[in-house]
Amino acid sequence: MATTQQYAPPPGLPPGMMGSHSDDDDEGIRDPAIAQVVSDIKDYQITHGNLLKIVRFEEPTRVPSTGVNISCKPTPFPRDMYDHAMALQQSMNELYIHALSDTNWLYSVLAPQIESEPEGVMVKLWGVYLKCLEAGPVQEMTCGIFRSDYMLQEEALRGEGVDGEAKVSLKQVEMNTFSCAGICHSQHAARMHRYFQERKSAEEAQDTGPSNTLPANSNISSIVSCLAMVHQSYLEQLRVGPTAATGARDEPIQHSTCVLVVVQPFNFNIADERPIDYGLWEDHKIPCYRCEWQEVLLRTRLGPHRELRYRPSSTAKAFEVSVVYYRAGYDLREYMDDAGVETRFTLETSRAIKCPDVLGHLIGFKSVQRALTEAGVAERFLLSEQARDHAGALRSTSMPMYALDDSVEGMRARAIAVDPARAKDFVLKPNLEGGGNNVFGEDIPEFLASIPDDEWRKFILMRLITPPARTTGVLITSEDVYEGPVVSELGVLGFAMWRCHGAGRGKGKAKEGISVETNIVHNEMVGWTFKSKPREVNEMSVVKGYGSFDCPMLV
Amino acid sequence: MATTQQYAPPPGLPPGMMGSHSDDDDEGIRDPAIAQVVSDIKDYQITHGNLLKIVRFEEPTRVPSTGVNISCKPTPFPRDMYDHAMALQQSMNELYIHALSDTNWLYSVLAPQIESEPEGVMVKLWGVYLKCLEAGPVQEMTCGIFRSDYMLQEEALRGEGVDGEAKVSLKQVEMNTFSCAGICHSQHAARMHRYFQERKSAEEAQDTGPSNTLPANSNISSIVSCLAMVHQSYLEQLRVGPTAATGARDEPIQHSTCVLVVVQPFNFNIADERPIDYGLWEDHKIPCYRCEWQEVLLRTRLGPHRELRYRPSSTAKAFEVSVVYYRAGYDLREYMDDAGVETRFTLETSRAIKCPDVLGHLIGFKSVQRALTEAGVAERFLLSEQARDHAGALRSTSMPMYALDDSVEGMRARAIAVDPARAKDFVLKPNLEGGGNNVFGEDIPEFLASIPDDEWRKFILMRLITPPARTTGVLITSEDVYEGPVVSELGVLGFAMWRCHGAGRGKGKAKEGISVETNIVHNEMVGWTFKSKPREVNEMSVVKGYGSFDCPMLV
Repeated sequence: MATTQQYAPPPGLPPGMMGSHSDDDDEGIRDPAIAQVVSDIKDYQITHGNLLKIVRFEEPTRVPSTGVNISCKPTPFPRDMYDHAMALQQSMNELYIHALSDTNWLYSVLAPQIESEPEGVMVKLWGVYLKCLEAGPVQEMTCGIFRSDYMLQEEALRGEGVDGEAKVSLKQVEMNTFSCAGICHSQHAARMHRYFQERKSAEEAQDTGPSNTLPANSNISSIVSCLAMVHQSYLEQLRVGPTAATGARDEPIQHSTCVLVVVQPFNFNIADERPIDYGLWEDHKIPCYRCEWQEVLLRTRLGPHRELRYRPSSTAKAFEVSVVYYRAGYDLREYMDDAGVETRFTLETSRAIKCPDVLGHLIGFKSVQRALTEAGVAERFLLSEQARDHAGALRSTSMPMYALDDSVEGMRARAIAVDPARAKDFVLKPNLEGGGNNVFGEDIPEFLASIPDDEWRKFILMRLITPPARTTGVLITSEDVYEGPVVSELGVLGFAMWRCHGAGRGKGKAKEGISVETNIVHNEMVGWTFKSKPREVNEMSVVKGYGSFDCPMLV
Repeated sequence: MATTQQYAPPPGLPPGMMGSHSDDDDEGIRDPAIAQVVSDIKDYQITHGNLLKIVRFEEPTRVPSTGVNISCKPTPFPRDMYDHAMALQQSMNELYIHALSDTNWLYSVLAPQIESEPEGVMVKLWGVYLKCLEAGPVQEMTCGIFRSDYMLQEEALRGEGVDGEAKVSLKQVEMNTFSCAGICHSQHAARMHRYFQERKSAEEAQDTGPSNTLPANSNISSIVSCLAMVHQSYLEQLRVGPTAATGARDEPIQHSTCVLVVVQPFNFNIADERPIDYGLWEDHKIPCYRCEWQEVLLRTRLGPHRELRYRPSSTAKAFEVSVVYYRAGYDLREYMDDAGVETRFTLETSRAIKCPDVLGHLIGFKSVQRALTEAGVAERFLLSEQARDHAGALRSTSMPMYALDDSVEGMRARAIAVDPARAKDFVLKPNLEGGGNNVFGEDIPEFLASIPDDEWRKFILMRLITPPARTTGVLITSEDVYEGPVVSELGVLGFAMWRCHGAGRGKGKAKEGISVETNIVHNEMVGWTFKSKPREVNEMSVVKGYGSFDCPMLV
């Protein structure tokens, strides 16, 4: 036990996180089967890096980590809905890529907020976009890693009672186009449940053989391959040499290139990011570096043709950055000062291929998701044959969403929002990119009453999805194991590369609303994430401790 | 930062382990290059499971973990010595396997301790062995995963001064034959340094291309493949059906077989064990279960032909155990009561193939290592042509070792041990299997004076290895980064399977000291471990916090 002592800090930490050790045998998990699973999960998480770093507790040579919330068993999910979501992803990618290409339309959607929130992220990003236009483009290629999140909606078909026959459909919670997280943790969760399933089937009297109820997950290698593809496309540009946009390169082509992951400091969730850089180095021999947002201006500089040069250290040579992969730059605090804006501008105006660029970032705001639900709008951006075939299916995944503006519809929405009886079926979402900070149902009227009228426009009112009531699950939460009704969210990962030809890009040279020069050169569905939360919990965020990473059991 | 807060326990833990977070900027690692490496190491360890579980701090749904001690850069090690150690391993395996087969010789070596320590582990193990002989063997096959540990010895060739030309040679610290640890952590350390090296070479002005200075390491898949091979050999026995030893099987052959890893409870080092069971499940589709030592009697039973039946849970079917892989059963506390002895006997007398059996365990005691250094002894056990060719090389790896008994040599050793001036060049090792609990140099006389004379026989006096003085390294320790002179230990992993034919096994039917029926059917070198410690530290144990996992830089 002497050695164990070495790793036995004294009690005194908050329960759930790393609370005091208790010898009280009454404490702990009652169900021995669940207790065994949880014990196995702890080991699996430690040996696979399915962990969160306890950054605020970091020491010079040590940093503790602990398991991320995860489910104890897969949660049932209809196979047809799963397949449907996967099948739609290419069209979903196309919808957003063509929408962002129509910068006139995009501006019309964003304008109210840009004009009313001089200090918001959106106005900073739009400013960066305009500065890039002035500078003129040197990189026609852009890429994006997207994640479209869905929940199931259950609607009673006849009668009102939940006993009536019900129709289940797929509804989009949000479309993430920037810094999509959960890629690595989701793979670990999926593979852990496959391992448990393999054990379970081996333990059954009749070995039922391999089951296909748990979908495979290769998120990490898929995303790594996507970034490798973008890197190759940049190298290809170097080989073909100067382009119209870049002008002649008078120096020999720089072959030391790297992918640059722009990250946040003090990140407790590195285990969801680092496997991607390890994969680029180890599986593709592509140099990949992480640069913290506030260090970008110190460590990078633009070359004569706006190639982005990055020096990993004072003793290292400089690399030419092929791809800027953003895992930072979405937080208002990152744009609080001029340096933050300058940081984003430097990256955006460079020759590196952005994943994604500022337009790909702006397209992720809730007001865009809302605008795409307007009659006829989405259809304008679905150009491929497949996408046109999916138009109806895509539309049917969207929930009613309203701006709280002065339009007729806006006023109608305001009326709903201030009436507790009607507001209970809605969620109020800040018009930002990404999730969180939502106000739910009956809390909406009180919340709106607490802020000035002219700030209402910062929010989008969305009808709440009504998930199936009967789905139950078993989830590890920070303090306990939850067993009961759950709500799951399926995220479909999409990847695309697109080219915008010519200097005219986005300057309004639009025909039928589409920047004619936009050309999608690669488009695919590349993986999935799956999270579940106790039904009574509103927020889903796993790293905030609300939900758990999970794996769908296809039924 | 709200989310970070969730994972920010308050201060108050001991420094080094998970001490209180400090905002004092003066704290931390001075050298920025080292600080960057340490930061990268933290992330690498978290994402690869190069961690220790903080078991005493476990919560129902959470257990914190932290990085195991590791080096910040590879430590130089002579390539010829590395290659030499690898080349010797098959012969080293053979030496010990044939030695254990000569049970008369083995008893003569162990007898003094067996007869003088009625409560020691050795007597318990020998008792189990005798009981197994009475019961009669039902399994001719045995296997072992060994680890031969070496340090470098430097001897001045001319003159006394360290400035004189020096001869460096390989000296065996000990031979581990039971529950060898470090398999998984060593692979992580080796691959981490390869990843760092790849980065470093990419950052050099002239890309030097792939370097071969860091040896590859595939410990985990190698050991997993070894256990899979043993499992297959058991299945083969089932296919060919009853053997002379087992008698007729009157029931249908049981095809649900599993590998059983017998483990200790509250193990903080699961990350060094679990990857092996995951590998059996995922890469070989072989069921593998972990059973805690004190649960063996509850969860297993012997079938009519002494097949070992294991039931993972009350709802699971029973499996027939093909291989018993011991990661427990070496601690005296595990044999304190009859249940402990019964546990070992049940496993040993079963039809499962043991990794290793009780003889393979006994051969790891220091008195055996010492006895093998006696003139002419090792030679008797080196039978293959290769082994005979290696006889001189093997002998030259052994340091002088003495029993503190009543023999002429023993009395001479006692005289050394009680004389501080001469004892300073020796280490006193308890005659146990595995390392630790040693008394070094000038501490020996005082220690011996503190115990009764008749307990001196429990120790072996070994001449201290004198490692090269100039080797320096950079090691993470629990509280700091150590930069300075280091001593490294290379462990070579060996695997072998051997068959002892007929009931005459070990009953003294020996010819020229060799149980003629012993037949080695598989023998190979399967990997390596490498640890380094500050030169002034005596003990090497990494998990106790003394040494660090490391990777040799072959020079």
